[in-house]
Amino acid sequence: MRSKVRVLVNGYGVIGKRVADAVSLQDDMALVGVADVVADWRVRMARVKGYDVYSSVSDRETVERMEEAGIEVSGTLEGLLRSGGVDVVVDCAPGGLGAKNKEALYDKYGVKVVFEGGEKHETAGLSFVCQCNYDEALKMGEEGHNYVRVVSCNTTAACRVLHALYGRFGVEKARMFLVRRATDPVKTDKSGIMNTVVPAPMPSHHAPDVKTVIHDAIPDLYSVAVKGSHTMFHFHFYDVILRERASREDVVEALREEPRVSLVRVKDGVFGLGSLIELSRDLGLPRGDLYTIPVWEDMLTVIGEREVMLALACPNENDVIPENVDAIRAITGIEKDWRRSLEKTDSTLKVPKVLY
Amino acid sequence: MRSKVRVLVNGYGVIGKRVADAVSLQDDMALVGVADVVADWRVRMARVKGYDVYSSVSDRETVERMEEAGIEVSGTLEGLLRSGGVDVVVDCAPGGLGAKNKEALYDKYGVKVVFEGGEKHETAGLSFVCQCNYDEALKMGEEGHNYVRVVSCNTTAACRVLHALYGRFGVEKARMFLVRRATDPVKTDKSGIMNTVVPAPMPSHHAPDVKTVIHDAIPDLYSVAVKGSHTMFHFHFYDVILRERASREDVVEALREEPRVSLVRVKDGVFGLGSLIELSRDLGLPRGDLYTIPVWEDMLTVIGEREVMLALACPNENDVIPENVDAIRAITGIEKDWRRSLEKTDSTLKVPKVLY
Repeated sequence: MRSKVRVLVNGYGVIGKRVADAVSLQDDMALVGVADVVADWRVRMARVKGYDVYSSVSDRETVERMEEAGIEVSGTLEGLLRSGGVDVVVDCAPGGLGAKNKEALYDKYGVKVVFEGGEKHETAGLSFVCQCNYDEALKMGEEGHNYVRVVSCNTTAACRVLHALYGRFGVEKARMFLVRRATDPVKTDKSGIMNTVVPAPMPSHHAPDVKTVIHDAIPDLYSVAVKGSHTMFHFHFYDVILRERASREDVVEALREEPRVSLVRVKDGVFGLGSLIELSRDLGLPRGDLYTIPVWEDMLTVIGEREVMLALACPNENDVIPENVDAIRAITGIEKDWRRSLEKTDSTLKVPKVLY
Repeated sequence: MRSKVRVLVNGYGVIGKRVADAVSLQDDMALVGVADVVADWRVRMARVKGYDVYSSVSDRETVERMEEAGIEVSGTLEGLLRSGGVDVVVDCAPGGLGAKNKEALYDKYGVKVVFEGGEKHETAGLSFVCQCNYDEALKMGEEGHNYVRVVSCNTTAACRVLHALYGRFGVEKARMFLVRRATDPVKTDKSGIMNTVVPAPMPSHHAPDVKTVIHDAIPDLYSVAVKGSHTMFHFHFYDVILRERASREDVVEALREEPRVSLVRVKDGVFGLGSLIELSRDLGLPRGDLYTIPVWEDMLTVIGEREVMLALACPNENDVIPENVDAIRAITGIEKDWRRSLEKTDSTLKVPKVLY
């Protein structure tokens, strides 16, 4: 039997803790542990779950601070890398820190790394959404490339949904309009906006970010975004000009068949993000995670013969979690077939396709 | 000297109370009073301002209820109409009630009426935004048409900004993406959404509503909208395909010259709706009203040669107030020149053009 890929998650925050749980569920991976610098309830929770905890930095003060807070520290990230005990680091440190870690640690020890969407494409040189470009990551991994970036939650949602359209009908032009959540629930203690709408600089980074995954599949792509005053799920409108004519039914069918995309309807009582928060919790998945992208079937409109207007919700804390698992498989080459990786991940995480 | 147009405001809510104040400031109009059915602080405030208060309905119970609450009632709306003491009613009753009032009262007494955006176009048979179609309203008024509808705050904002574009460059196609406020501050006691985003049925009513004013000026117009979790200002993105080529500077210049549209910049610290709420209050106008439509100059982008992407904020409680004043002039014919009406209104209301 092939030995398991040994994975360490660096950064035990909103994404990291979910990746750790997801990796634990895979029979072709072993979670070595998690690393962080925080010494409060969040990291103590990792010990409650039985994960070995490492210090992300090697200075004595940080290790002592964590130990004084009652956290059993198994060692430092650098010590672990030096010992060769890790095949893949999933770097879930706050945005921008991944690039610093790469320079200080990952390049030095030659470890494979999955970065998150808070890092620039250039840091990894390869951006990833399973159903769009698994083969590209696999090939680059086989050629000795060590780094891959799972794109942000919004970009992941966009890539999945646009893939259903450009894969089936071709897409000439797409305009994306995003209403982002203010901040994550856990961060409302310290940050987040209230009772306002705040636009991002135009264009937003989402369209260029989608291109790092789908390359030239959509020649004319542009996005704009605002932050809203809510804390869970982003909301997206897409205005897409197809290359081929398609009926409303054709488009709905393409979305129905697309992995990690699910259809919901206003007439079923899914009125907005609040409905989806409750629905997700009712599904019983850990933390009320949803993983899949709900698209409103009964809002979807085809204007004329080739223009599609659609609305979707992006489960911002968790749609990238299955992608992290697949990215580990692609960059290490332990699975050559994207669909087999996707199905294995979705089966272990219980990613829902039909929501109700 | 020409006698003043006698105006009664029916419905002393968010819009009605502002219209009453605005009408009071006009030297060619006389505010006869305001009518309502409510007997709480909101209508008592009308008495504080010295306005005569009438009962919108004629049943004895309502009049007694208002009087028992200490409100001096000068009579009923119907009594006033019967006496011929009113030339124009501005109907600011809750959406849909205007149509009922028309059937029960206005048709019967042959009074001229300005309806608001909560009524259907068909109720008035004429929809209005001053700089777009004052002449149409004037002509219909001269031909004996009694009714005009000031369109909703969102539609008013859209008409003004799109007018700058189709008037100057022609517009082939426009797509509007709206993030509406949840509800008005005064209504958060009882209604309003929280911590969610709720889409409207697609298409939203805004594009068809714009067409009631601008008719065929933009042949291909479509809009979508969500409700956000904030209480003041709507936010709009427009994606507009011009007929003629235009540079970014050309478009900014057209907006700079458009009445009741103002330019703001992120780099001046106008980050979002919160900045505009504070800025409006600092301007010192009653209730912190702004009346004009702020468009972000430094977000505005021309994609290619003819596609304009822009962002604006709609002061939802008050951008229609100057329109109500102009609509009275247009439908009664007391002013034949739209620009003279607009300038008189803006001067009396101190509608700002340059905000800072």
